[in-house]
Amino acid sequence: MNFGSDNCSGVHPAVMAALMAANEGYVASYGGDALTAAAEDRVREVLDAPEASVLFVATGTAANAICLGGAVNGWDRIFCHEDAHIETSECGAPELFTGGAKLTLMPGDGGLIDPDALDRAAGFWAGEGLGGSRPGAISLTNTTEWGRIWTAEMLAEISAIGKQHQLLLHMDGARFANAVAGSDAEPASVTHRAGVDLLSFGGTKNGAMGVEAIVAFNPELAARLDYIRKRSGHLLSKHRFLSAQFYALMEGGLWLELARHANDMAGLLAQQLDAVEGAHLAQPADANQVFAVIPVDAEDRARSAGAVFHKWASLGEETEDMVTVRFVCGWNTTEEDVSDLVEALRG
Amino acid sequence: MNFGSDNCSGVHPAVMAALMAANEGYVASYGGDALTAAAEDRVREVLDAPEASVLFVATGTAANAICLGGAVNGWDRIFCHEDAHIETSECGAPELFTGGAKLTLMPGDGGLIDPDALDRAAGFWAGEGLGGSRPGAISLTNTTEWGRIWTAEMLAEISAIGKQHQLLLHMDGARFANAVAGSDAEPASVTHRAGVDLLSFGGTKNGAMGVEAIVAFNPELAARLDYIRKRSGHLLSKHRFLSAQFYALMEGGLWLELARHANDMAGLLAQQLDAVEGAHLAQPADANQVFAVIPVDAEDRARSAGAVFHKWASLGEETEDMVTVRFVCGWNTTEEDVSDLVEALRG
Amino acid sequence: MNFGSDNCSGVHPAVMAALMAANEGYVASYGGDALTAAAEDRVREVLDAPEASVLFVATGTAANAICLGGAVNGWDRIFCHEDAHIETSECGAPELFTGGAKLTLMPGDGGLIDPDALDRAAGFWAGEGLGGSRPGAISLTNTTEWGRIWTAEMLAEISAIGKQHQLLLHMDGARFANAVAGSDAEPASVTHRAGVDLLSFGGTKNGAMGVEAIVAFNPELAARLDYIRKRSGHLLSKHRFLSAQFYALMEGGLWLELARHANDMAGLLAQQLDAVEGAHLAQPADANQVFAVIPVDAEDRARSAGAVFHKWASLGEETEDMVTVRFVCGWNTTEEDVSDLVEALRG
Amino acid sequence: MNFGSDNCSGVHPAVMAALMAANEGYVASYGGDALTAAAEDRVREVLDAPEASVLFVATGTAANAICLGGAVNGWDRIFCHEDAHIETSECGAPELFTGGAKLTLMPGDGGLIDPDALDRAAGFWAGEGLGGSRPGAISLTNTTEWGRIWTAEMLAEISAIGKQHQLLLHMDGARFANAVAGSDAEPASVTHRAGVDLLSFGGTKNGAMGVEAIVAFNPELAARLDYIRKRSGHLLSKHRFLSAQFYALMEGGLWLELARHANDMAGLLAQQLDAVEGAHLAQPADANQVFAVIPVDAEDRARSAGAVFHKWASLGEETEDMVTVRFVCGWNTTEEDVSDLVEALRG
Repeated sequence: MNFGSDNCSGVHPAVMAALMAANEGYVASYGGDALTAAAEDRVREVLDAPEASVLFVATGTAANAICLGGAVNGWDRIFCHEDAHIETSECGAPELFTGGAKLTLMPGDGGLIDPDALDRAAGFWAGEGLGGSRPGAISLTNTTEWGRIWTAEMLAEISAIGKQHQLLLHMDGARFANAVAGSDAEPASVTHRAGVDLLSFGGTKNGAMGVEAIVAFNPELAARLDYIRKRSGHLLSKHRFLSAQFYALMEGGLWLELARHANDMAGLLAQQLDAVEGAHLAQPADANQVFAVIPVDAEDRARSAGAVFHKWASLGEETEDMVTVRFVCGWNTTEEDVSDLVEALRG
Repeated sequence: MNFGSDNCSGVHPAVMAALMAANEGYVASYGGDALTAAAEDRVREVLDAPEASVLFVATGTAANAICLGGAVNGWDRIFCHEDAHIETSECGAPELFTGGAKLTLMPGDGGLIDPDALDRAAGFWAGEGLGGSRPGAISLTNTTEWGRIWTAEMLAEISAIGKQHQLLLHMDGARFANAVAGSDAEPASVTHRAGVDLLSFGGTKNGAMGVEAIVAFNPELAARLDYIRKRSGHLLSKHRFLSAQFYALMEGGLWLELARHANDMAGLLAQQLDAVEGAHLAQPADANQVFAVIPVDAEDRARSAGAVFHKWASLGEETEDMVTVRFVCGWNTTEEDVSDLVEALRG
Repeated sequence: MNFGSDNCSGVHPAVMAALMAANEGYVASYGGDALTAAAEDRVREVLDAPEASVLFVATGTAANAICLGGAVNGWDRIFCHEDAHIETSECGAPELFTGGAKLTLMPGDGGLIDPDALDRAAGFWAGEGLGGSRPGAISLTNTTEWGRIWTAEMLAEISAIGKQHQLLLHMDGARFANAVAGSDAEPASVTHRAGVDLLSFGGTKNGAMGVEAIVAFNPELAARLDYIRKRSGHLLSKHRFLSAQFYALMEGGLWLELARHANDMAGLLAQQLDAVEGAHLAQPADANQVFAVIPVDAEDRARSAGAVFHKWASLGEETEDMVTVRFVCGWNTTEEDVSDLVEALRG
Repeated sequence: MNFGSDNCSGVHPAVMAALMAANEGYVASYGGDALTAAAEDRVREVLDAPEASVLFVATGTAANAICLGGAVNGWDRIFCHEDAHIETSECGAPELFTGGAKLTLMPGDGGLIDPDALDRAAGFWAGEGLGGSRPGAISLTNTTEWGRIWTAEMLAEISAIGKQHQLLLHMDGARFANAVAGSDAEPASVTHRAGVDLLSFGGTKNGAMGVEAIVAFNPELAARLDYIRKRSGHLLSKHRFLSAQFYALMEGGLWLELARHANDMAGLLAQQLDAVEGAHLAQPADANQVFAVIPVDAEDRARSAGAVFHKWASLGEETEDMVTVRFVCGWNTTEEDVSDLVEALRG
């Protein structure tokens, strides 16, 4: 009953098999191998983006920070949600990779940036001149840090505001697969066709060992990204083992299959939480994460039964008796895990 | 016949098996798992350094840059060899991670920093005051970029100079295993007992998929390293898969066994090069790399036969007819590979 | 009738005379001259801080950014007010000088950081671990960006919270003179005796040509500050001309005399605004700045009459008919200027 | 008898008068005043560069570092002489402002970069790929750190090499006036017409209090420079006092008059050194600096007589009895100073 995070899970057998298969003989290092080229091609196909640049790295923080370093300079502002991973959980990686750009924090329900607030903030800072730092980019997370999905329509709205203020648009897609699976959207329609310039396309949380694809739909950014990946130490020498993982995920739509399963398990859990007295969802469970406000007693019971999950920053609904928690479902969560958890919560 | 680099090789079966074995169930992410603790312990044992901090990362550039970021500030100078990997091959990673420290390039035969030159340079810059940047650290590579080994005696001399000038001492040990195997030294005697403060302990080139251990013998540096690893995106979430690799290398002395084999193959090659007319070694083949000056004809013959290897920056012995080349032997190089190469060179 | 900013004013005659007097013969450059030593001593005397380090620079942004660069690392958080100059008006200077530290924005009336919010935020981020960046420092502005004064009591409260969370305390004192004059406090009692570690002590806005003193009460920080000043290009070669300005301000208490005058003019203006129909103060006019909500008609009349002043970010009291404005009084503002302005506003 | 540096001199009376004249009434801050616009225009006229962007700052290190920050990214290499001020005397300012670009040190007599060495180095690093960092810019100093002048022909040669390798060309002109005066060149012919993209045009060493003009002949760089000046704290608020200085220097050709005088005094000194037994010039005295190898006895005599000057890094001609020294002449050096010095050296 581990609902702590999708990065507490292991590696999907198909990915592991791909790693073993890639371990044959000598190949060129640093991404000069055929498997890397093939994996990049697969990403371009999946995203229907034949001109895109694709770079693989081992962590989501690296993917985000390299994207942002490519997008802006140190005198720019990046608009993101106040709960964005790049603000709360990356120890200043965006600042390191951009040379000190500012993250300007936006409100918005469920981690979804409020479009009006963004429009006002971008306009305000543009008017502040040199001293105010230049509005440079938007970074949004899909699915969000509260498990919500950006639809093509929502993205179009944000993107239009961004274009009006000359902002590049980055999507932190550590759980992009869950967003696509959860909305049944075409990958292209929620990325470049919706105005996304740069995508961090996550693999690690979706059954890989450690791989994320940086995708630059805007080819002018590609050279910068190459240099930034190299100088930040994120160009792996035995690169075939990154590529093998992503290739395996793309192959036969495995990435969507795994994400759909995780989403389904979260949907099941969300539904069964009705049976836990006093519990209610903090946010709609759009994808593979369930945020719930539950009685402290229920929390205690579940932990005593061995369930692993995190308390989460409050949404203002907490009292002495109630607590906000997060349950994450992964590619390997089972229906039994879900029912065991619910049973434990119910006592 | 691939002598291009030890990172063109694949992963040793024992490491691959360890990755598979580590893929069981749920564990805490970001290094909070038991296997990580065990692997760190094994590194401390091997180095006889019970107080050392150990941090695993996926690339050698990351290991070096994080070490240097922990050691110095942006207003410092780092003294390194003019052919040091951190200067020639990391795209400014040390500068990024240190906030702009300067690499001051030292001469020295075979990549071994000349002690007198170092002493003079450190003294000179210390005398230049604020403007000259503060002498802060030495970074040396073992084995060097020209395949040479720093012995305990040589290290003691460099370290004494460093202490006199209040310089921290970093060792880029991307091929540390080859240095230890090649000198039959105790690991401790060529690291902390010789005055080394920070070690990049390489695994990738020695049969791993992608793992290096950062070792801080000076515990005051540990907190800085933790933060720098995190904010540079080098704390892997499914961290057990880094730890598993290093654990497997340490287990039963596999790391030394593999390095010894690679060194033996290089020794064999160095010896057989005598039979290639006109060829001679550019440097003694102390470990697993052979640098040779060979006739251009021989080079052409070997390439035609399918041998893979790199031309190397000249040592000043090149003419129209002669070229300097590098042959790297790895854990999987065979005697047959060596004899095939020599045969091809001889024509 | 220029109430635009105290940096639109010229230089006080005594400062200009000091510059001319300093222009005699040859002296050592880069601060090695006797006048610099004397000026540093005067600052230490005025602050009753015999052990403090004093460094002169030409701009307030430099003073703030060098202080913060000395105080924290790139993986730290600096807590400041959401309207702090370092956030709104310095184009990311703190981020550049610290290597990318985060500014975490605090609410609080009148630019005064809310102590409870600070306590919660520091505690929250300390609990977030590596990813959350380390709480490192507080930066507050005295007088604040809304013209308010931090009293010794208020500082003691903030400082106690800071110590509890191991935060260094920086004071942006671009208008420190106005704060001291406005509260009749001893300079020491609102700086080091109240827990301030680093002070940006402004001269430019108070009659100088361009000089600020960085004061490090914590001597461990001094070496870092020296290097940061040098490498940011803020160590002036003909340094005597910075020192002469600050010496002249300190001499005979000129700095307080000028600040008191500016404060008095602001007090007069605040009082006379009663006579402007519909106008009211947005904040108490503690020092030399008056923030007022005035009818748009009054604004138009004043501008037509040639008055110079800035609209200010809204306090939420704006309507179509009302606007928030800032009037700044300087060392050279006259009673006539004030009455002319009020007359123009009244129409 | 102060020959220590031209920044030990005071301010020329005309500059001081201009500062007093500028101290009238209220003007817009941060460069929005009429005098700033006029001073910028005068620089454009003097350089015959009507499209150039001009930004004033208070120090030479700021001018150089802002130029380089505008020219390159952190993953670039800047080629400069091994004795370049940006390498030896700015505490890593270029690295801070560029985000960690590398300075690659070139040999060359008298501080003049050897063109062949530059060509080879730029070609070599371009061939090293990502890891080697990208060749991005050349920075040369005119007059050089050894008092030599770059002629239009020499600049054309360097510039042609630079263009071939796609390098921007920056000129550190802390003593640009001395270079122009010493070569009787048109300012345009040794800057933009010779391929210079960015100029640090010095005023401080040439009679000002503290002002340098950054000139961007390449207008695409201007926006970057504006932001970098601001965020490094180098946009002075009472900006008219920078502009007044530069305007006064430009007015009536004062800058060239002062430089010509300093050069003449250096010429006189160089000539009279013939009379000092055992002394000889280390470099031709092209402009206002005289580098000489003199007997230690002569040095001792001169210092006993109160002469101020610096020992200089050896040119390899030093022995126990001989020492290399630098004598700098300024706008206020007199013939009597020169003859007093020579007399003291002779004993």
